[in-house]
Amino acid sequence: MTSRPVDGLEIDGGRLAGELDTLAGFSDAPAPAVTRVVFGATDRQARDYFTSLCAEASLDVRCDAVGNTFARWVGAEASSPAVATGSHIDAIPNAGRFDGTVGVFGALEAIRALHRAGFMPRRSIELVLFTSEEPTRFGIGCLGSRLLSGALDPAVDHSLCDADQRTLHDYRTAAGFTGALSSVPLAAGAYAAFVELHIEQGPLLEAGGLDIGVVTAIAAPASLRIMIEGQGGHAGAVLMPDRHDAFLAGAELALTVEAAARATGSIDTVGTVGVCEVFPGAVNSVPSRTRLEVDVRDIDLARRDGVLAAIRDAGAAIASRRGVSVRVEPINADPPAGCAPGIVAAVTAACEAQSLRHQAMISRAYHDSLFMSRVAPTGMIFIPCRGGVSHRPDEFASPEAIAKGTAVLARTLAALAS
Amino acid sequence: MTSRPVDGLEIDGGRLAGELDTLAGFSDAPAPAVTRVVFGATDRQARDYFTSLCAEASLDVRCDAVGNTFARWVGAEASSPAVATGSHIDAIPNAGRFDGTVGVFGALEAIRALHRAGFMPRRSIELVLFTSEEPTRFGIGCLGSRLLSGALDPAVDHSLCDADQRTLHDYRTAAGFTGALSSVPLAAGAYAAFVELHIEQGPLLEAGGLDIGVVTAIAAPASLRIMIEGQGGHAGAVLMPDRHDAFLAGAELALTVEAAARATGSIDTVGTVGVCEVFPGAVNSVPSRTRLEVDVRDIDLARRDGVLAAIRDAGAAIASRRGVSVRVEPINADPPAGCAPGIVAAVTAACEAQSLRHQAMISRAYHDSLFMSRVAPTGMIFIPCRGGVSHRPDEFASPEAIAKGTAVLARTLAALAS
Repeated sequence: MTSRPVDGLEIDGGRLAGELDTLAGFSDAPAPAVTRVVFGATDRQARDYFTSLCAEASLDVRCDAVGNTFARWVGAEASSPAVATGSHIDAIPNAGRFDGTVGVFGALEAIRALHRAGFMPRRSIELVLFTSEEPTRFGIGCLGSRLLSGALDPAVDHSLCDADQRTLHDYRTAAGFTGALSSVPLAAGAYAAFVELHIEQGPLLEAGGLDIGVVTAIAAPASLRIMIEGQGGHAGAVLMPDRHDAFLAGAELALTVEAAARATGSIDTVGTVGVCEVFPGAVNSVPSRTRLEVDVRDIDLARRDGVLAAIRDAGAAIASRRGVSVRVEPINADPPAGCAPGIVAAVTAACEAQSLRHQAMISRAYHDSLFMSRVAPTGMIFIPCRGGVSHRPDEFASPEAIAKGTAVLARTLAALAS
Repeated sequence: MTSRPVDGLEIDGGRLAGELDTLAGFSDAPAPAVTRVVFGATDRQARDYFTSLCAEASLDVRCDAVGNTFARWVGAEASSPAVATGSHIDAIPNAGRFDGTVGVFGALEAIRALHRAGFMPRRSIELVLFTSEEPTRFGIGCLGSRLLSGALDPAVDHSLCDADQRTLHDYRTAAGFTGALSSVPLAAGAYAAFVELHIEQGPLLEAGGLDIGVVTAIAAPASLRIMIEGQGGHAGAVLMPDRHDAFLAGAELALTVEAAARATGSIDTVGTVGVCEVFPGAVNSVPSRTRLEVDVRDIDLARRDGVLAAIRDAGAAIASRRGVSVRVEPINADPPAGCAPGIVAAVTAACEAQSLRHQAMISRAYHDSLFMSRVAPTGMIFIPCRGGVSHRPDEFASPEAIAKGTAVLARTLAALAS
């Protein structure tokens, strides 16, 4: 495939950078950190800002029952499957300002640039803001795209709760998204393609002096919740041989997660214990209970499942040796996904049309694209971020890098929508 | 020393059990758990209940500037050093109902029983309710007895803060304890003796079928706060060899604390990591920061200091190997204390006068007695508690066991005050 030329395409990188600046101000954490939890006040402010810009760009805006927001540039063949793009704007606690947001506001600028260049799409182009890509509130990532792709049962409306035991239904209806959750899944063939622009969240592009990563596969996480119950007691009075310390069992298990991820011998396997809560959490009390949350990722499903099995086995051995109970509950375990060859080719052609240095790569992080790949041919465009850093306040992508990615996205959308 | 007979001494165990029942109702946690944090609403309710009972028993009640409360039965020689007894009523989160409270309300019943038996004290008998024996709010245990004994600089008034950054001064003055903190330390020779009744918080008395433990020495904790700073990042994107995971460093260090405490070969050494906080605490983020709180106890100071040195050495090695920073800050490190032979003899004689099965033992937990031993000859009376369990909702001492300990306390006070 060759990229159709879009004469006079110019990305307004300054405007886009300014919009990302404004967006970063909608945060529950002081700058430079960004915290923006789905259905919180700053999420609402950010959504309002986004829809106001979409309206200004003459896009048709609608929302579904979980708050996924769709901004459509209606093409000449309005009834044909649309070409979709988009990402998310929620941010985990104490995160940065580029994860997700570049794929939403960059896509908006791509559409504006195509409009300014006089491009007339044959297929409609639809920009999607996905609800809750981050698992912060409900413990499950990609909530919006899971529901949209049919990967998640709409019955979660009343079963998914946050730490305050408020349900998804409560939150979404309070936020004004009041329809039935069963109306969210996309109709078959709704989209001819889906393309997501995103920061790499890894070090390879920067290290290689590259402008663009053309994503060929998306790794997927399996997440586990591990509850350990031991026996508490007074830190002075319970003798060492009599202890059944839930935290020490958790500490051993966390080190096992690290060892099992390293033991595959593949650089593509990662394992993380990001959450450890210790109860009762007093300096003079032996921990009676510990909760871990574990994330294991790979692009190879069998290898990932091998790590999960090693963690379960270690949990059983530690439980037996320490006289504690270890309960391992899966939170989610999505299969990795390959990108569609046609989209990969379109992105590659767009890079070449602009003489950008590009490289095929996998996505180690997962994204809404993982779920969109179930309902449409899907691809991703990565741009470098400084030091590969993400999910931290010092996450950074330069305005130039963002503008280049936006230009590649614009050309890719134009090619797919022509 | 032989116990002077107190003819007709009768402990009203039923009344005492009822008072402990009432006290347990002043709790921030649902029964059977008790949470009662110093200067909170339930602490105030419990103090009011205590002082109302003291007034009913015709004791003279006064409070000092940190809220230590003194209820005095004035003796025939009112100007002689008094015989003191007492303990605390605060309770760590999700604790039980007997830790500390038995030594306060038991002492009150001992005084009432001596009064009913027609005993006339030569020395005054003073019951002390100590403020904040538990470290829950301010991170330091035995706040009241430390100040009373001169072990803590009154300048902490403005430097000790809770998690909300409110100072001790704020809390105590809001609770109505408004004097200068420098007025708290006891005058030299204020007390001729101090005796504390307490549940064992260990398994030995129950296992040995014993009624009373006669405490000969009190182990003391050294507490450390350990701050680990690593590098955060996205759990999918940061490759395993590139990680500097603060939680995994903390997990290794926690296991080192256990190993170092066991390595002394003495059953009297215990080491605990009761607090582990992981930041940012998201399932898909590599932990960037971890805070541990460590408690190491022994009755042998040199052995305890050896464990602390091993923890510091391990912290440095882990920091170097994992590329994280490990900062170890002492919270407190009090020396262990021996009990006064004269008090030990008086308690032993009281046991024998009542034909109770008793045994000399050490206190593995520390108590206000640890600090009172700096200003007065001190001893402790232990009673069995079920399974040795303490700092848990299922902490339990039977009314019979409490009544026996109360009788021993009453005879000991009588002997010391005669």
